[in-house]
Amino acid sequence: MTAIERFYSVIPAGGIGSRLWPLSRADAPKFLHDLTGSGQTLLRDTWDRLAPISGTERIMVVTGRAHRAAVEAQLPELADHNVVLESEPRDSSAAIGLAAAILALREPDVIIGSFAADHVIKGTVLFRHAVQEAAALADAGYIATIGIRPTEPAIGFGYIHTGGSLEVAGAPSASIVDSFVEKPDLETAQRYVAGGKHLWNAGMFIARADRLLEEIARNKPELHAGLIELAAAWDDPATRGPAVDRIWPKLEKIAIDYSVAEPAAAAGRLAVVPAQFDWDDVGDFASIAKIHSGGRKRDLAILGADARVLADSSSGIVVSQGGRTIALIGVEDIVVVDTPDALLVTTSANAQKVKSVVDALRLSGRGDVL
Amino acid sequence: MTAIERFYSVIPAGGIGSRLWPLSRADAPKFLHDLTGSGQTLLRDTWDRLAPISGTERIMVVTGRAHRAAVEAQLPELADHNVVLESEPRDSSAAIGLAAAILALREPDVIIGSFAADHVIKGTVLFRHAVQEAAALADAGYIATIGIRPTEPAIGFGYIHTGGSLEVAGAPSASIVDSFVEKPDLETAQRYVAGGKHLWNAGMFIARADRLLEEIARNKPELHAGLIELAAAWDDPATRGPAVDRIWPKLEKIAIDYSVAEPAAAAGRLAVVPAQFDWDDVGDFASIAKIHSGGRKRDLAILGADARVLADSSSGIVVSQGGRTIALIGVEDIVVVDTPDALLVTTSANAQKVKSVVDALRLSGRGDVL
Repeated sequence: MTAIERFYSVIPAGGIGSRLWPLSRADAPKFLHDLTGSGQTLLRDTWDRLAPISGTERIMVVTGRAHRAAVEAQLPELADHNVVLESEPRDSSAAIGLAAAILALREPDVIIGSFAADHVIKGTVLFRHAVQEAAALADAGYIATIGIRPTEPAIGFGYIHTGGSLEVAGAPSASIVDSFVEKPDLETAQRYVAGGKHLWNAGMFIARADRLLEEIARNKPELHAGLIELAAAWDDPATRGPAVDRIWPKLEKIAIDYSVAEPAAAAGRLAVVPAQFDWDDVGDFASIAKIHSGGRKRDLAILGADARVLADSSSGIVVSQGGRTIALIGVEDIVVVDTPDALLVTTSANAQKVKSVVDALRLSGRGDVL
Repeated sequence: MTAIERFYSVIPAGGIGSRLWPLSRADAPKFLHDLTGSGQTLLRDTWDRLAPISGTERIMVVTGRAHRAAVEAQLPELADHNVVLESEPRDSSAAIGLAAAILALREPDVIIGSFAADHVIKGTVLFRHAVQEAAALADAGYIATIGIRPTEPAIGFGYIHTGGSLEVAGAPSASIVDSFVEKPDLETAQRYVAGGKHLWNAGMFIARADRLLEEIARNKPELHAGLIELAAAWDDPATRGPAVDRIWPKLEKIAIDYSVAEPAAAAGRLAVVPAQFDWDDVGDFASIAKIHSGGRKRDLAILGADARVLADSSSGIVVSQGGRTIALIGVEDIVVVDTPDALLVTTSANAQKVKSVVDALRLSGRGDVL
């Protein structure tokens, strides 16, 4: 495989993954775990997927200062100039926008593709094909995304409302995006799935860096100005630190969906490639259980190298981190997450509510286990 | 309260309580736990219930050598001559029979009452009244028991089939026992409960020591001979040790139900006093949950002084021994038992199956957590 021309991968490695507590923690976020049984972390899986597409020299990782060592341990090939450290989280517009601004200065016609560090994708070749089409759309001036065909009326994702086909060379399956819509209620999601016109938003954005910045400038001029100023100071060690200290904490916290995707869609500048590959955001334990059971009911997925699990008439998922003996009897669709200082017991149906427990623990002063 | 004349309490403190694993262990059996929230162990509760009935000087405890220190720590008033240590478990006929034989030698007309160390009784005065009636039956030559009115068609208990009323002074509520029956199936249990003629066997036996030995002699002459020989050697430090080493390991392992109660009932020599007090054998976690919730549905019982439990829409029981944060979301009638080296997750409906997990752990070489 040869790299896609002018392409640069960006991996925003942020977000704790609160719905995966107590496995995911502030100091061990989701992207640093092996949730698929691949034998390596989601971050490393992401790197391995992108390396053939952009080349290992052309992958930029945006992550928190606290995770620098862990990220570098996972990605020994990661070059210093490809590490962007956030002094504090400022959401995806700032993270991806800064990467775009830095790369645009270094290489004015660069095409960037931003992909989360903690999603699961099966079908590397199909993924590459989609990125290739998206890069062709980017080259033609679009903000491109890759949309996932819904397999169920999920209410945890945003949806992409596709419009007519586009006639762009190298992007035969692309459509224009009519609108970018927020997480729907169940009824709306069912309508979307039945209609066949909606795809899931998997947060993948592919664009010329300058075009992406143009969208931010149009919608969030102050944020854009901050990013440009920061990028100008970035590659000089003498100016980077002070610029970060001065500018980064003041950047607006806003998801790139709002600063770029929604307005670009409304203006007819957002295009989508429908994914042919399998994708999962591994957003909660039900999702992990599904990945491990291959969708079979009544299976019990067991994660953890030292797991000692004895199960009788039980299904769901056990995540074992403490090496303790775990016995399950007659519990179905159960979720048991056993870590040295915290234990979660819930069901697949309640997996989305785990975040509320994290919130409650924070409010009740038990931040030590978060 | 004055003590009942000639009465001696015997507490067989044995049995691990496998259905309460991983809380109950070989080195921390059920009777050494506070399962009721009383603030003290079941053994101590038992002692406190019996002390006013027999006097603290007249309570004998039969327990395993391994538990001597723990038992003495719980019962500082326990006199040395009231401690009978088993070199290995030989079931209840040997344990109670040896106590009877020792006490009969010391005090020929003694009436003994044997009560498990790990049951829960509410209503101390009603309990005393029942024991008083049973002692009157014992004085009249009967083997007496106290039967529990069934509150549900339990299949985990043996049943006492009551016959006609007895005319024994001091025992106005007593009946003769027609038969002593094994744990029934559900249908039979339902019939028993509907019929109103059956009581639960709570393993309480009250009899003149010499009468109890007479029953054993009739049904198990070799066992009886061993007990008599052992008792004769008991009170001399020079002879006790060798006698125990020689005789104890060869005594037949048999429950007192078979060596005494069933044959005595068949011969019309077993009498029963129906209990007016609340009794529970705390046989499994469902039973503990019920005790703590006062029978209310949808309650979550939490055991453990350092428990840190966060529960959302959950009911059942959590036993916390490790001090870890435990979060439950949307799990009903759940049983979670969290100890430093083992975790159990099951439901109230499956609580009786815990013993099978213990068996499986033993078979699979994981005896370290038993």
